[in-house]
Amino acid sequence: MREALQLAAQGQGAAEPNPMVGCVLVQAGQVIGRGYHAKYGGPHAERAALADSSGQPTRGATAYVTLEPCCHHGKTPPCTDALIAAEVARVVIAQQDPFGLVDGGGIDLLKQAGITVEVGLLEAEAKRLNAPYRKLLATGRPWVIAKWAMTLDGKLATHTGHSRWISNELARERVHRLRGRMDAIVVGSRTAQLDDPQLTVRPPGMRTPLRVVVDGEATLSPTSQLVQTAHQTPVLVAVKKGADAQRCRVLSDAGCEVFVCGGEGHAARLDALLAELGKRRLTNILVEGGAGLLGEFLKLGQIDEVYAFVAPKLIGGSGAPSPIGGTGWADMSEALQLTDVTIEPLGDNVLMHGLAGGNFTKQ
Amino acid sequence: MREALQLAAQGQGAAEPNPMVGCVLVQAGQVIGRGYHAKYGGPHAERAALADSSGQPTRGATAYVTLEPCCHHGKTPPCTDALIAAEVARVVIAQQDPFGLVDGGGIDLLKQAGITVEVGLLEAEAKRLNAPYRKLLATGRPWVIAKWAMTLDGKLATHTGHSRWISNELARERVHRLRGRMDAIVVGSRTAQLDDPQLTVRPPGMRTPLRVVVDGEATLSPTSQLVQTAHQTPVLVAVKKGADAQRCRVLSDAGCEVFVCGGEGHAARLDALLAELGKRRLTNILVEGGAGLLGEFLKLGQIDEVYAFVAPKLIGGSGAPSPIGGTGWADMSEALQLTDVTIEPLGDNVLMHGLAGGNFTKQ
Ligand SMILES: NC(=O)c1ccc[n+]([C@@H]2O[C@H](COP(=O)([O-])OP(=O)(O)OC[C@H]3O[C@@H](n4cnc5c(N)ncnc54)[C@H](OP(=O)(O)O)[C@@H]3O)[C@@H](O)[C@H]2O)c1
Ligand SMILES: NC(=O)c1ccc[n+]([C@@H]2O[C@H](COP(=O)([O-])OP(=O)(O)OC[C@H]3O[C@@H](n4cnc5c(N)ncnc54)[C@H](OP(=O)(O)O)[C@@H]3O)[C@@H](O)[C@H]2O)c1
Repeated sequence: MREALQLAAQGQGAAEPNPMVGCVLVQAGQVIGRGYHAKYGGPHAERAALADSSGQPTRGATAYVTLEPCCHHGKTPPCTDALIAAEVARVVIAQQDPFGLVDGGGIDLLKQAGITVEVGLLEAEAKRLNAPYRKLLATGRPWVIAKWAMTLDGKLATHTGHSRWISNELARERVHRLRGRMDAIVVGSRTAQLDDPQLTVRPPGMRTPLRVVVDGEATLSPTSQLVQTAHQTPVLVAVKKGADAQRCRVLSDAGCEVFVCGGEGHAARLDALLAELGKRRLTNILVEGGAGLLGEFLKLGQIDEVYAFVAPKLIGGSGAPSPIGGTGWADMSEALQLTDVTIEPLGDNVLMHGLAGGNFTKQ
Repeated sequence: MREALQLAAQGQGAAEPNPMVGCVLVQAGQVIGRGYHAKYGGPHAERAALADSSGQPTRGATAYVTLEPCCHHGKTPPCTDALIAAEVARVVIAQQDPFGLVDGGGIDLLKQAGITVEVGLLEAEAKRLNAPYRKLLATGRPWVIAKWAMTLDGKLATHTGHSRWISNELARERVHRLRGRMDAIVVGSRTAQLDDPQLTVRPPGMRTPLRVVVDGEATLSPTSQLVQTAHQTPVLVAVKKGADAQRCRVLSDAGCEVFVCGGEGHAARLDALLAELGKRRLTNILVEGGAGLLGEFLKLGQIDEVYAFVAPKLIGGSGAPSPIGGTGWADMSEALQLTDVTIEPLGDNVLMHGLAGGNFTKQ
């Protein structure tokens, strides 16, 4: 199952909005086939593993699958059919598929065919791997990865808003690799204004993320790099009801999609945006700041994962923004404690990565 | 010489305000004696190495010393005498001793005795090792180590000033080990007020640092832990001219030393304090915050070394202090870039350590 999980992870960035799935076929103690769901719309892990075993008898074999095999006709025929046809004797499943059209149905079908089914081996790991998929199914909201680069004295920018560059080349390369598997990159209006970023993936990655600016008043400049390149790489500007119609029209004429977030106040509108992105089946979104926007995400309980790059520089300034703004909590015991923390030196910078406590197991 | 440097470093925390020095005696390619300056007032490295070689002939040997041998009568007789008496043929020295009573005099004496003298082997490393000693001699100010613990979103405390605890047990142990070789621990008035810290070393280290509160208005509470323990562990309260005489009297009656910093404005007064600590031959001081005080040190160019502990917690809040306050610089290119950066994971916390660019080579 551990190998199946490793196989599954190879689909990261290409499988979404499908789950990542890996499968290993074992016959008399020997691995006879390996497969994973390598691309959205492509063959599922079970079929890939069966194909990989070609020539060798699968009758009586055990299939280790990281997710319950599907039992419905989607872009490909059901995997349960394939396993039954292959006459495997036993299917070991890490986690049930919460997807409505499966949700135990695959397990039932296999059992009805006389196959022994076991569920729950390395379930926690399997759930963590597909936490974004599970969150989207359970809540209709994408998985939110917050990313920032800060100085060692905790600044996102100088007191004048200058932030180029805090992190080193290695860290910036790492960010582009991360961007390359995202469905959207989100920034706040002030970041768009002060940094005039491109928010593209350089070099291109597995997918081209939608570029989203949270910009209640539709203040995004028509001469910004984002707007100027909106015809090549999509830009969504999330405005509030009553945002200046003229400015909205200029933005949409320039090729941006203007999305009006319902609701009163920053929190409600941000949630409306997340619901919309979820409806479009965006699985992973990267929030790149600034402090105001990240403060709103924190307050909403909508930070699921963090990539924080720390550079050995001191800039000082009580007026310089630190990564997460907003109100914040009053007592250290209320702090959001990250779990599964990893520490990765990148030259003289360090990347600290973690998950927002327990979010991936809640679902 | 590399071994001599390693020996020298073993004196850290015990040798100050003397420099750390190591010595290795080599006879015909064989190490015959090793020594270092293990304690202020104790034997110097050269004499320790000669003692270590006891019985073996030192005539014609080479002595590798990390610092120019002394030629004056201090707490111990001159090392040049000992080397000459031992009839060594060659002395290899990493760095000249900038101390006024030596400063090339040791080298001259050895040469006059017919000994071959070479200077400069691994000089940069040797200078780095004794950067605090060199700074004190060159500027009359102690070496300043800034230390803080911050959340991954760059906060020193919550927006209400609550900071217990940000870092984990391992990080806090590390801080106590660091404190144990300091000559003073310095905090700002607001930190003393909000945190009511003890600033002691637990368990005790090699020395007992003077506890210093930068407290212009002498606002330190007589019921604070610092004042209550002033008879056991010294406390210096650095006030400004014109600070309330009554409050100053209460503090000195309670056992604190009240030191009046001359000069107008925070910067001048802080510099006066550093000059006073330097006059007392305090070599290493640890500044533990808060943001206001560290901002002042940064502006003065008086941060020499940094120990920053980062904990994987998010607290949020644009009103929460980040490590270095004050005005700060406006452009990222002005940031103080740390050098010799090391990254040390401590459980799920990380310690980033570095030196303020080039400070140790300037002198
Ligand atoms: N180092 C890095 O990784 C990094 C990354 C990004 C940005 N930055 C720096 O961060 C700075 C910009 O950050 P920022 O915090 O000023 O702006 P920001 O977060 O980019 O933009 C403010 C955002 O917060 C929303 N918001 C939510 N609650 C708010 C509130 N109570 N008050 C104001 N806005 C609220 C605003 O929405 P509405 O528009 O709807 O009002 C807007 O989307 C720039 O200096 C940039 O260089 C650094
Ligand atoms: N996590 C950590 O490692 C850590 C460490 C220490 C503190 N903290 C937290 O930091 C907070 C306290 O920090 P803080 O920045 O408020 O106070 P602070 O730095 O402890 O005290 C303010 C100091 O700055 C001096 N100062 C210099 N310039 C100043 C200016 N322009 N304005 C005001 N003061 C100036 C003041 O001197 P005068 O008194 O002479 O005016 C005073 O010594 C607390 O919440 C504490 O919990 C956290």
